[in-house]
Amino acid sequence: MTNQVKEDIAIVGAGPVGALLAVMLARKGYKIDLFESRPDSRTKALYQGKSINLALSDRGWLALKAIGLDEEIRAQAIPMTCRMIHAVDGSLTRQPYGRDNQAIWSVSRAGINEQLITLAEQQAGVEVHFEHKLTDLDFDSGTCSFDVSGKESADYHRELIFGADGTFSKVRRLAQELPGQRISYSLDYMPQTYIELTIPANSDGSFMMEKNALHIWPRKNFMLIALPNPDGSFTCTLFMDLQGELSFESLDDEDKVSHFFREYFPDAMPLLIEPVATFMAKAPSPLCLVHIDPWVIRDKVALIGDAAHAMVPFYGQGMNCGFEDCRVLAELVEEHQHHWGEILPAYQQARKENCDAIIELAKRNFVEMSDLAGDARFLLRKKIEAKFSEMHPDLWIPLYSMVTFSPELPYAQALAVGEVQKEIMDEVMNLPDIEQNWQAECTYRLLYQLAQEKLTANILPETVSNPLSPGSSQTLSKKKEVKA
Amino acid sequence: MTNQVKEDIAIVGAGPVGALLAVMLARKGYKIDLFESRPDSRTKALYQGKSINLALSDRGWLALKAIGLDEEIRAQAIPMTCRMIHAVDGSLTRQPYGRDNQAIWSVSRAGINEQLITLAEQQAGVEVHFEHKLTDLDFDSGTCSFDVSGKESADYHRELIFGADGTFSKVRRLAQELPGQRISYSLDYMPQTYIELTIPANSDGSFMMEKNALHIWPRKNFMLIALPNPDGSFTCTLFMDLQGELSFESLDDEDKVSHFFREYFPDAMPLLIEPVATFMAKAPSPLCLVHIDPWVIRDKVALIGDAAHAMVPFYGQGMNCGFEDCRVLAELVEEHQHHWGEILPAYQQARKENCDAIIELAKRNFVEMSDLAGDARFLLRKKIEAKFSEMHPDLWIPLYSMVTFSPELPYAQALAVGEVQKEIMDEVMNLPDIEQNWQAECTYRLLYQLAQEKLTANILPETVSNPLSPGSSQTLSKKKEVKA
Repeated sequence: MTNQVKEDIAIVGAGPVGALLAVMLARKGYKIDLFESRPDSRTKALYQGKSINLALSDRGWLALKAIGLDEEIRAQAIPMTCRMIHAVDGSLTRQPYGRDNQAIWSVSRAGINEQLITLAEQQAGVEVHFEHKLTDLDFDSGTCSFDVSGKESADYHRELIFGADGTFSKVRRLAQELPGQRISYSLDYMPQTYIELTIPANSDGSFMMEKNALHIWPRKNFMLIALPNPDGSFTCTLFMDLQGELSFESLDDEDKVSHFFREYFPDAMPLLIEPVATFMAKAPSPLCLVHIDPWVIRDKVALIGDAAHAMVPFYGQGMNCGFEDCRVLAELVEEHQHHWGEILPAYQQARKENCDAIIELAKRNFVEMSDLAGDARFLLRKKIEAKFSEMHPDLWIPLYSMVTFSPELPYAQALAVGEVQKEIMDEVMNLPDIEQNWQAECTYRLLYQLAQEKLTANILPETVSNPLSPGSSQTLSKKKEVKA
Repeated sequence: MTNQVKEDIAIVGAGPVGALLAVMLARKGYKIDLFESRPDSRTKALYQGKSINLALSDRGWLALKAIGLDEEIRAQAIPMTCRMIHAVDGSLTRQPYGRDNQAIWSVSRAGINEQLITLAEQQAGVEVHFEHKLTDLDFDSGTCSFDVSGKESADYHRELIFGADGTFSKVRRLAQELPGQRISYSLDYMPQTYIELTIPANSDGSFMMEKNALHIWPRKNFMLIALPNPDGSFTCTLFMDLQGELSFESLDDEDKVSHFFREYFPDAMPLLIEPVATFMAKAPSPLCLVHIDPWVIRDKVALIGDAAHAMVPFYGQGMNCGFEDCRVLAELVEEHQHHWGEILPAYQQARKENCDAIIELAKRNFVEMSDLAGDARFLLRKKIEAKFSEMHPDLWIPLYSMVTFSPELPYAQALAVGEVQKEIMDEVMNLPDIEQNWQAECTYRLLYQLAQEKLTANILPETVSNPLSPGSSQTLSKKKEVKA
């Protein structure tokens, strides 16, 4: 590829990431064709087999702010300031996500997707092609072949192609079949799968449970969660092993399923719309991790979003991370003055290790959500961390906050710092009678000493502020390398 | 699949594993079609792009003994009883592989493959089809479609299909594309790649270096190795990173390559046939790891050998492990009385964790071969282990021997026991002045105490004898679970 300034770009996949990328690149002056295999959901109702709502947080907001769409989307979004833990006995525990009403936001996946597509269509130079299903891709010439509405075929020759076509990316699959191409790849199915259920609104449109919370019923090897929708309903997701002693496969008749809901979710069961019938009728959806290296093939095709780094939903970062891909790429377009021969390698360099880190963090978070969230010692650990973080915000941002509320802190650094924090907290939690003494001054003296010793050697005083909250006192190094 | 006794079986891939499997299953009474994409190497000379010779050891011999081919192959094989380490200054160090002249054997890959194919053809019910390239596979009906000699196509409907088609298995790739099939998969390219070089025989047909050794020039991030051939020559393999500061890519002109050989392999350079020209002319071959789960798809198709578990060659176990797959499968055919509905799940259950273990062990062994083999402290550690193992053969078999010379010990157990041994040896090597005191009685008293404490709790006294050497005193538990 030459370093010419203006290129014609094809983006395969008009999900939230592909549509956002189209907007961003169009605004840099590129001519964009955005291809989507499905019909236009704005004119044809369709269930995409994906989660109905999802959690948008500061990394996502930062990318949406860059295209000026943040306020429009925030108008429809519901802030969730805490986890609401539902114990088996029905008792509730509130766990704030951060400080000062920091929140993650429940948004409609379809809604945000449609708003982004509409905005893309409004950009000069963007053309959106629905019902275009990629069938082949010539990685040398840049020719993309599509099956159009299942009727005809069409070829498009473009100088640059982005695969934004999700976890089971066709672009990626075609790349893997290139002879002689060294592509390391993994796709791992998690033992957990999921189905979605619904808690409706009250007849007056109000919420049946606390609105501004992400509700969790942690049951160790499985869990139910619920996110609020603007219409007063909650979309619930039941995560559980596909196979095994207690699993989607073992619960194979209505009696067992009914007993299961009564035993483990007694408070939710009466609220859910036909949980037993829905459970019996729905095939559980898989959860996968995808790793691939390289992301850029023959200087002509690049992967982005889930196509490059599918993760599990347990950190609420899938879409946020894909949006961050777009934001970083757009910044690199400027930085390298439209020289794609430099932009694409820099893009992979900037994103790969960070996406590997959030894939790992998301995977680990299942245990935190489904098991530890109900564990007293774990909650105590969180309380100590929160208190210490308030005392020394320059020295300690809890891992969840680094990932969720520090949108300029690279994921890889969050992971590395988090591991040192874990070591430190393990030591603190081993103090005798920590349950009684957790508020004692000596606890925080030890924490300060350990943090000084183990963290500041690695974390330089360069600060990361949260660009979404200019007055934020959050500070942490941007330095990437942490000797964890 | 029904549990009927006799089935028609297709085996895709007539490499050593596919051919051995054909012999074994034919002898159990099955009708076998063995398909190979390449022409018959016995009538057409062809370079297969694979290593010319490889190391056969006790797991391989055990499988060959089961079909009575061991003596015929041993007649052409060259025992290698030690590593011969070549330092940069040309000095040599001999590291025995085991006790009492225990050896690994250099065999010709093509030779053993051809002997197995010839034996397969001699079995009643086996038909071998060369130049049949698999193009499609219907996993429900069992129909295999082939491109025949690049001219016509042919379909074969078989009740059971084995994919023995190697690291880049087409059977595996077709399985991955099945809609709705949960297949976890990874293919990882190692940074190292390799080319082959040759040291010829002397004019009288004798060997230019010690015949009964595997020669290694360990240079930390890269290495040269050499295995003897029956004609007096050595086949050498240079393993080195494809990219980086010192790599196949960085050595991009004859001067650099010549300087490289002179600097790092001064004793080998004058023996090698045109090393510089060969280096410049050959494209380095990749090394990959393959993991896939499940190995059995729709009760009808199963993967075996590299198609199921490709590994790097650094433990000399690739073919041995594939042969073990066949031996174990054949034993399960008897055990489950030809009920394939039971055999295939039992096969995966028996093999998967063990193949994962040897993939991991082989990967780790690059460091041992290319770096540690030249390290004085590492050699001391090996000497202490060897001495202790001689004193207490029931308590301690060195890891290399568990993998190589204990053919009935599962790889996964070797890995787990090896990790406990490593902990113990780390402690022993930390003794003050161990370099001076390594022969002192107290060293072995400590070792005995640690081994008693950490190993016997996990390793039951049930013994594993080496069925290839009936008088062997090797004993180690067959118990699979080791709390490592």
